[in-house]
Amino acid sequence: MNPGDRVRVERAEQTFEGVLLPSSTASNLVVKLDGGYNVGIDRDDADVDVLESDVYDIEEGETSDSSVVEFDPDLPTISLISTGGTIASTVDYRTGAVTARFDAKDVLRAVPDLAGRANYRGRVVANILSENMTTDVWQDLAQAVYDEIENGADGVVVMHGTDTMQFTASALSFMLDTPVPIVFTGSQRSADRPSSDNVMNAVCAVEAAKSDCAEVMVCMHESESDDDCALHRGTRVRKNHTSRRDAFTTIGAKPLGRVEYDTEEVTFRHEYNERGAQELALSADLESEVELLKFTPGMGVEALDLADGKAGLVLEGTGLGHVHSDWAERISELVDDGTTVVMTSQCIEGRVCDRVYDTGRDLLDAGIVEGEDMLPGTAKVKLMWALANSDDPATTMQEPIAGEITDRSVPWE
Amino acid sequence: MNPGDRVRVERAEQTFEGVLLPSSTASNLVVKLDGGYNVGIDRDDADVDVLESDVYDIEEGETSDSSVVEFDPDLPTISLISTGGTIASTVDYRTGAVTARFDAKDVLRAVPDLAGRANYRGRVVANILSENMTTDVWQDLAQAVYDEIENGADGVVVMHGTDTMQFTASALSFMLDTPVPIVFTGSQRSADRPSSDNVMNAVCAVEAAKSDCAEVMVCMHESESDDDCALHRGTRVRKNHTSRRDAFTTIGAKPLGRVEYDTEEVTFRHEYNERGAQELALSADLESEVELLKFTPGMGVEALDLADGKAGLVLEGTGLGHVHSDWAERISELVDDGTTVVMTSQCIEGRVCDRVYDTGRDLLDAGIVEGEDMLPGTAKVKLMWALANSDDPATTMQEPIAGEITDRSVPWE
Repeated sequence: MNPGDRVRVERAEQTFEGVLLPSSTASNLVVKLDGGYNVGIDRDDADVDVLESDVYDIEEGETSDSSVVEFDPDLPTISLISTGGTIASTVDYRTGAVTARFDAKDVLRAVPDLAGRANYRGRVVANILSENMTTDVWQDLAQAVYDEIENGADGVVVMHGTDTMQFTASALSFMLDTPVPIVFTGSQRSADRPSSDNVMNAVCAVEAAKSDCAEVMVCMHESESDDDCALHRGTRVRKNHTSRRDAFTTIGAKPLGRVEYDTEEVTFRHEYNERGAQELALSADLESEVELLKFTPGMGVEALDLADGKAGLVLEGTGLGHVHSDWAERISELVDDGTTVVMTSQCIEGRVCDRVYDTGRDLLDAGIVEGEDMLPGTAKVKLMWALANSDDPATTMQEPIAGEITDRSVPWE
Repeated sequence: MNPGDRVRVERAEQTFEGVLLPSSTASNLVVKLDGGYNVGIDRDDADVDVLESDVYDIEEGETSDSSVVEFDPDLPTISLISTGGTIASTVDYRTGAVTARFDAKDVLRAVPDLAGRANYRGRVVANILSENMTTDVWQDLAQAVYDEIENGADGVVVMHGTDTMQFTASALSFMLDTPVPIVFTGSQRSADRPSSDNVMNAVCAVEAAKSDCAEVMVCMHESESDDDCALHRGTRVRKNHTSRRDAFTTIGAKPLGRVEYDTEEVTFRHEYNERGAQELALSADLESEVELLKFTPGMGVEALDLADGKAGLVLEGTGLGHVHSDWAERISELVDDGTTVVMTSQCIEGRVCDRVYDTGRDLLDAGIVEGEDMLPGTAKVKLMWALANSDDPATTMQEPIAGEITDRSVPWE
């Protein structure tokens, strides 16, 4: 048994399989698991089988024992996936480029307060500010989350820039059926600022990832104080402030739940999908040819040229879901040409209803699909998903898939 | 002195000039003033000069005395201007078309509870649902408001559809220096519904128009109850719900003031322009070639083609004011071609700051103007105005003109 050997270690009814790493203490075995993280295992009572010798050519001293994170079989395993953003500025990547070399040790170097709460795996999917997020990265991320859960993660935390976190959280909400929590978190203030929110958000996200709620959530400061984080459904959350730490708000209801920072208590105020209730499944196809267009007074009908030849268009109309009456004919042409046109409202709160006024009924006649009370951004992501995964996208757009449509909005509750 | 004569009537130190109308009682003179409204004047102690005979050919009996509204010299004169919308559905226009024949009598027929609160003039500028509002109508409305104030109105109430009320209120905020209150109101529920908000909103708007606050305001339900209306600055208000009666919210602060429905008390919590402090002035020119574009993930840079050759573009970016980094070069081209590009945030709350991240600094290098904490819609209207009225639109965009930029946002206060 030498460093570089592929081994199977059994101890305390747990089995670990991976590559043996050098360890400077006699009491520990250090194994690099297939998921990429290192486990320190007490050598006492451990049964070791060498499966293959010298899989890797490892120099003695390459890994120092002080950096090894002890695996605690009593703790759940949480996968921490980084996509970039302000919170990732706390993470000491070996390079700025995308790399899989982000392990438990890196996680704890980034946020030492995470120690003792879980066993960690680290993984980097991207390292971008989130305004540069693309549908490709959504798909890579969904696959990575799927793989982590498939490989036994009891929960996943995704570190993400806050600018477009709600879009990515929506995308994963539609793409994944998950038996474990998938918790997005980020940071509004970087770690070098006294007011940084990175530690509390990361800690609370890990606690949420250990909870019983198997949904895609966003975990961010609930108030300007450091008391607790709110847990928002990925499809109903919105970044409502450019800079405040409590920028994120659930639209149309109170947040799904909260995590108390001091007590680590996670509570929920609405019904949710329980851990293990859903089988893990991934449907990551997306139709990228979908636009969102916000209507404002003075906007000419030529703005709709943006949607020419596109598979889908989400309109962000006024009030109950209106645009200038002059648009109805052009919208009708788009629909006839095969574009699915979904109406949402820039009011943000409340439900679209185009049956109240003549102008709205003209839009229904033109073939628009009422987007219920979906957030416009969520509707865009869902339309991308529905066009790629549903035989009847228009119908799918009006059916709740992941909490994005509520039975009845309870705003300002 | 006969009906149809042009007359000047002096009574109780008030002078009225207009066309004498038929009156069925001996005790009253009824005069149609040049502003278009009818005044009933007690014949006792009235001095009448006939200025011109038979200006109009008026048939006896055309106006019945019962419809004449008594002018009360102790009450202020409020001009009620209609542009259409749900609240206007309570108004019995003689035709659906635009007409000046909307007088004090019509006002009181629309909302009888207005009686006794003021002397009224009625005026119709448009009769459209507000999603069909155009910059032309904004200009007509600004001119009409100007004329009403010039002709002695002590306050103006504008009835407007709620969908784009905030845009029109912003437009008038920039176009007019006003010595009297200009109060927008509307209705989220039509008068035929038990929950209609039309009466309370109209009554509170008239009370606000009688107040000391010489600003452009929006007066709408403050809560779901009928207790009071909030008064919002025209440039800081947003319709935040598709259907609720308390849909309108001041962004970044508490509302400017409120009107208690029962007590008629109008109170203000922030400083405001006092009645008479400003000279009446109108600068109604607008550059209509201005677009607003909301950026969402997946939107290609070709969306910017919408702004090709336009005078102005307001971007509704993410977070502190970001778009995909790929956009910087194309934005630079637009700026070089003479388009003023202003960055705002879809967060709605908070201030734009593009100096924090590299991606933002690239946008500043490309020539964008940071839109401070202006609402995106307000920024679009202001850019239309600044391009037509300022020698240095970019600088004007960053200076507060009508409360649209706050020193420091106090959100969720």
